Amino acid sequence: MKEEIVSKVLEGDSRAIARMITLVENHSKEASSLMKEIHRYTGSAHIIGVTGVMGSGKSTLIAELTRLYRKNGKKVGIIAIDPTSPFSGGALLGDRVRMTELILDKEVFIRSMGTRGMLGGLAGAVYDVVEILDASGKDVILVETVGVGQAEVDIIKIADTTVVVIVPGLGDSVQTMKAGVMEIADIYVVNKADHPGIDQTVMEIENLVELSSNPNTPIIKTIAKTGEGVSDLLEAISQHQKYLETEGELEEKRKIRYEAELIEIIRNHLLDMIYDESIVKQRIDTIVDRILSKETDPYTAAEEILGRILK
Amino acid sequence: MKEEIVSKVLEGDSRAIARMITLVENHSKEASSLMKEIHRYTGSAHIIGVTGVMGSGKSTLIAELTRLYRKNGKKVGIIAIDPTSPFSGGALLGDRVRMTELILDKEVFIRSMGTRGMLGGLAGAVYDVVEILDASGKDVILVETVGVGQAEVDIIKIADTTVVVIVPGLGDSVQTMKAGVMEIADIYVVNKADHPGIDQTVMEIENLVELSSNPNTPIIKTIAKTGEGVSDLLEAISQHQKYLETEGELEEKRKIRYEAELIEIIRNHLLDMIYDESIVKQRIDTIVDRILSKETDPYTAAEEILGRILK
Repeated sequence: MKEEIVSKVLEGDSRAIARMITLVENHSKEASSLMKEIHRYTGSAHIIGVTGVMGSGKSTLIAELTRLYRKNGKKVGIIAIDPTSPFSGGALLGDRVRMTELILDKEVFIRSMGTRGMLGGLAGAVYDVVEILDASGKDVILVETVGVGQAEVDIIKIADTTVVVIVPGLGDSVQTMKAGVMEIADIYVVNKADHPGIDQTVMEIENLVELSSNPNTPIIKTIAKTGEGVSDLLEAISQHQKYLETEGELEEKRKIRYEAELIEIIRNHLLDMIYDESIVKQRIDTIVDRILSKETDPYTAAEEILGRILK
Repeated sequence: MKEEIVSKVLEGDSRAIARMITLVENHSKEASSLMKEIHRYTGSAHIIGVTGVMGSGKSTLIAELTRLYRKNGKKVGIIAIDPTSPFSGGALLGDRVRMTELILDKEVFIRSMGTRGMLGGLAGAVYDVVEILDASGKDVILVETVGVGQAEVDIIKIADTTVVVIVPGLGDSVQTMKAGVMEIADIYVVNKADHPGIDQTVMEIENLVELSSNPNTPIIKTIAKTGEGVSDLLEAISQHQKYLETEGELEEKRKIRYEAELIEIIRNHLLDMIYDESIVKQRIDTIVDRILSKETDPYTAAEEILGRILK
């Protein structure tokens, strides 16, 4: 059965991909042996992170990008980490129509991932899904995240190319960039380029880019709804990919991803152990009761638990 | 020296508080023994999470809330986890003036925390800062976070009372709530109540609240800039606090926090170990090179590392 799933995943069978992802997300017993099997088949997909605040139109942009990639014969994987993304079912009617074409395409695999209630954090599962889609023969994997915060910082560790989507008029956008997103962008997209305020937004970004550590970062204007400018974006992504390959930067990016992935796997495994009663001997809730009653404190309790599991 | 810091923190000395936070953030050697010392003095502060998208005016709301608490003689701690918060120095001039009063007040302690480059994630450090401010005698601790995502989900684990700030006209807000923030709110605030669209926004939230697992969640209208409605919010917070205390829910909330804190401490400690060469014997980057060359895979490598550190 294990061999069957793996060989079907390698063939790009969508049902097998979905099944393997579910096994991995559920921390099933087979998951890690399946993941071990597929690693040798990975490494050829280009991983593109797309980040931006809600309402910036990044889902529509991803849909249009996917359409273009498909025209060029590329196979596409989409991972939506935005809970309000149309890919996550939070779509308005217009978006749903737009997405239907992609959903019906066998060479497009779409997976939405929630951020709630994931014991080991989101990142671990995303690394796994990226590896699975890569092994399944997808040429391009688009990872969509929302807003500012840890997820946006983590995306650089997963993506080869990071696209930051800005919309004119949201004065916050530029402030956000200053605060942290600034340094992660390989490409800026100013979407909704038909809206007023476009010129000022582009100018603000140009000024920030000039002062940044990478003053050559391209700024692309798009109108995702009509598809305008999306081919320029595709071109910029492919230029960045070439740059990564010729400068040996791709290897660096991949090393960062593998290190982050390795650490995530270790953390999740250790977390499982801590919750495993037979190992920790005392139920976590009993320990928490002792912290609450001030009989012990979180740091002392942590040392006790560590003492039981570590060499 | 250790006794001196602890006793000064317990007296509420702002410089000692700041120094202890820095020691803890830097993972210094003394940090855990200092944290062990203060745990017994914690538990009396009321911890209030305030979350909402950028531009929702939550910093102004926090400033106004703090002003009211100070009028009532309460000591206040503010932890800003939003990188674009005026408390983090990302302020416009108007905000800065508003904040100055608070900054000059010795009984108000403000700390801004970044989300970038924190090895162990943000949450661990926030738990520590909450414990320190609690031990220092603050009656109220306000924790500010932005947007949707993991940080917003985590805030329920830290806060006794979670306030979700919405603004009219941002159509996204209600969609966001549906997607996840919905279930975390103990109180809704519709801020900028002088803006058009206020009635519709309130109605949308009322509809969602009615269908939720907690149909009695209060919805408060405020105009943070003028202070209007902020005393209603304070009243709603204090009602919620009373409810928690009489229903035994406060203990439940604290247990959730201590468990999350315990797990964070354990995870961070283990992470430090993994990066400690003398324990893992082989440098992480050598292992990553082997993953890159497909000589091994992340799951097998993780098992090898775990085998070396675990009993």
